Amino acid sequence: MLITDLRTHPIAIADPPLRSSYGLHAAYALRTIVELESDEGVVGISETYGSEGQVRQLEALRGRIVGASPYRLSGLLSSMVEGQGAGAERSQNYALPGENPLDATTRTYAAIEVACLDLIGKTVGQPVCELLGGRVRDEVPFSAYPFFKQAGGGGQGEDSRTDEYGEALSPETLVRQVQQMVAKYGFGSIKFKGGVLEPDLEIETIKQLYRALGPQVPLRIDPNSAWTVETSVRVGRALSEELGRGGYLEDPTAGLENMREVRRRLVAEGIRTPLASNVAVTSFADIPRSVQLDAVQVILSDHHYWGGLRQVQHLARMAKTFSIGLSMHSNTHLGVSLMAMTHVAAATPHLTYACDTHYPWQSAEDEVVLGGRVPIVNGCVRIPDKPGLGVELDYDQLARGRERYAKCHYRKRDDEAEMRRRIDPNWKRILPRW
Amino acid sequence: MLITDLRTHPIAIADPPLRSSYGLHAAYALRTIVELESDEGVVGISETYGSEGQVRQLEALRGRIVGASPYRLSGLLSSMVEGQGAGAERSQNYALPGENPLDATTRTYAAIEVACLDLIGKTVGQPVCELLGGRVRDEVPFSAYPFFKQAGGGGQGEDSRTDEYGEALSPETLVRQVQQMVAKYGFGSIKFKGGVLEPDLEIETIKQLYRALGPQVPLRIDPNSAWTVETSVRVGRALSEELGRGGYLEDPTAGLENMREVRRRLVAEGIRTPLASNVAVTSFADIPRSVQLDAVQVILSDHHYWGGLRQVQHLARMAKTFSIGLSMHSNTHLGVSLMAMTHVAAATPHLTYACDTHYPWQSAEDEVVLGGRVPIVNGCVRIPDKPGLGVELDYDQLARGRERYAKCHYRKRDDEAEMRRRIDPNWKRILPRW
Repeated sequence: MLITDLRTHPIAIADPPLRSSYGLHAAYALRTIVELESDEGVVGISETYGSEGQVRQLEALRGRIVGASPYRLSGLLSSMVEGQGAGAERSQNYALPGENPLDATTRTYAAIEVACLDLIGKTVGQPVCELLGGRVRDEVPFSAYPFFKQAGGGGQGEDSRTDEYGEALSPETLVRQVQQMVAKYGFGSIKFKGGVLEPDLEIETIKQLYRALGPQVPLRIDPNSAWTVETSVRVGRALSEELGRGGYLEDPTAGLENMREVRRRLVAEGIRTPLASNVAVTSFADIPRSVQLDAVQVILSDHHYWGGLRQVQHLARMAKTFSIGLSMHSNTHLGVSLMAMTHVAAATPHLTYACDTHYPWQSAEDEVVLGGRVPIVNGCVRIPDKPGLGVELDYDQLARGRERYAKCHYRKRDDEAEMRRRIDPNWKRILPRW
Repeated sequence: MLITDLRTHPIAIADPPLRSSYGLHAAYALRTIVELESDEGVVGISETYGSEGQVRQLEALRGRIVGASPYRLSGLLSSMVEGQGAGAERSQNYALPGENPLDATTRTYAAIEVACLDLIGKTVGQPVCELLGGRVRDEVPFSAYPFFKQAGGGGQGEDSRTDEYGEALSPETLVRQVQQMVAKYGFGSIKFKGGVLEPDLEIETIKQLYRALGPQVPLRIDPNSAWTVETSVRVGRALSEELGRGGYLEDPTAGLENMREVRRRLVAEGIRTPLASNVAVTSFADIPRSVQLDAVQVILSDHHYWGGLRQVQHLARMAKTFSIGLSMHSNTHLGVSLMAMTHVAAATPHLTYACDTHYPWQSAEDEVVLGGRVPIVNGCVRIPDKPGLGVELDYDQLARGRERYAKCHYRKRDDEAEMRRRIDPNWKRILPRW
């Protein structure tokens, strides 16, 4: 079986005006859908970050992809992920996920690897998780992912959307947003995007969530490095009960040294809330130093930038070996990415937390998966009884996404510029802000 | 595709009287050949340690294996390899490989995983290395593995063998043995089993090898923990030139603390010969402490006891991440194991040394692979252009191996007892001896 064609589809999908310490989500998020067709007429698909750069990087590999066996391509391209030994610092504290030049090669590799696995799975009639060593669970738990946000549901012009959640810029409206999301999807844990309001308001938000949902629902807060060490310790102390029951404090502050200091001070006070990260540890090269400092107790995997599904499995084994927890990071995505995340999570024994997902923020109007949105039931996505990733493309919807990409003026993600454009012309990302 | 039958074949193969710090190889080595048959009539095979215990452990899984999908079995049995987090010490300093109760589950799991991968590969027409993410090399380099030995080639009674290498109990005869082996197989590196003669004689042996083969042939010595820290440092110092050119000093002394001390003292003298191990680090649980101490700079992988091919890939990624080299350990084996070793090595980018193999010590009369012995050319084994492991069973030869097992009195490996029986009735394994 050989690959006879590579097709890359840049698409734009409406994205609500979500807030974070990076700024504001633009009216459209960009994604790239990849198709690999085999000489048997089977098509394997994947989804990754969208930008002109990402499409260019994929197209640059065309000569190595077309004519290759999907079984051998990961090996042939392995230098794209194997460059990462110990040493090089790849912190993403400033670079938005998908825009960090240091992980451009692992991002591109991952998109190819997933499409190859889907192609193989569809050819031999096996779900992708079984190609990765076999599932250890039939369904994968995801977390609700509440954001402070402006009103509205994204899109522009006649494509602009209303939004079932509305504005949330206070603890009370955030709690309401979570309750809506939990009622709709059945999530059993909550990852709250902080770093937007004053820390005291975010502490209050977590406290209200804890009262509203009860101690059996694990809570996490992720201010995307918006805080000083001092503020991080203060928040960790104030929320020791609320985050300590199966939750974590994610990237409160920037850099491994600062994370270590927060950890050291919290532990000295008897507070063992784990610190999680997807910016201080974003590649294998970051792990030795993080282990040495005990800077990060939970790593957020993400096959999109860690270099694919097998690299996430390696990461999980490493995390288990060093007594580090494993969770999963998410960016704005559609159902193809959701299924890739679900398959690797299903085939990864050491997944110690429910995965993040932005999926509730997207809508059926933008889904490119045939048959519509992937169901999340009781907070979980099930591995479907279908080969490959278990989803196929809806080519009409894909064409709509491409059209929207052609029309909209976004060509890369820039939350800071969007914040200036729509909220505050003088806004700047400041780390630490508080 | 479902598995309809499990067949386990205990076999005995003639083994020359090789010496090590464990004692003496018995006249027969025991192996177990595993067959998994699918409902499509395809048979997947593997080879592992032989002993009554090993066969029993495999047979105990029959109820979970028969009726399962080979794609899902590794996942279903994953608790057998996932038990190993940080913590539990699994040192094999005293237990012979294959006889350590602490890795009984990972050994058994590995035998099943390899047979499943062979079954899948033979079903879909792909070599096993491509099922593991794809080869990064078409051929895998192995090392010559010279031993001090008594005369003779193993076997008993009318099955007793002559041996092309003869006795080797001096530096000169060992060098001759290596030259014969290099001439026959083209090996480009040498792993010398020490711990048998006085350290000064083993230093002299390495020095003669270095003079005979030249500095371009990497040399390793493995005394199986026979030395004190003091002696280890003395040998490391005496052989800094000879082992320092791409070779290593393997398990000179027992335990991570002692290995650390040897390393510390050699580095203080400016000698950076890496220390390798397959007894101080034999499972993921050993790695954090080894990293912390910088006790081991090269880990010897071995899919037979690390828990299969995928676990070796995880190990390799971990080793690369922590700037640790990766080599491969070997026990007495036939062609099925050799091919499993070759496939995982082919699909493992971070393999930084030629692999060990005992294969030259076995003979065509015992090979169970159809068509006879797997060729080693220019020191390398090539991935054949065939599905699965690339080898099939010769059922007549398998029957002969079973018959020999039934006749011989060995039921587990015990080199110490064999040493007492055939060489010195008062012999005891003493660590450290020198």
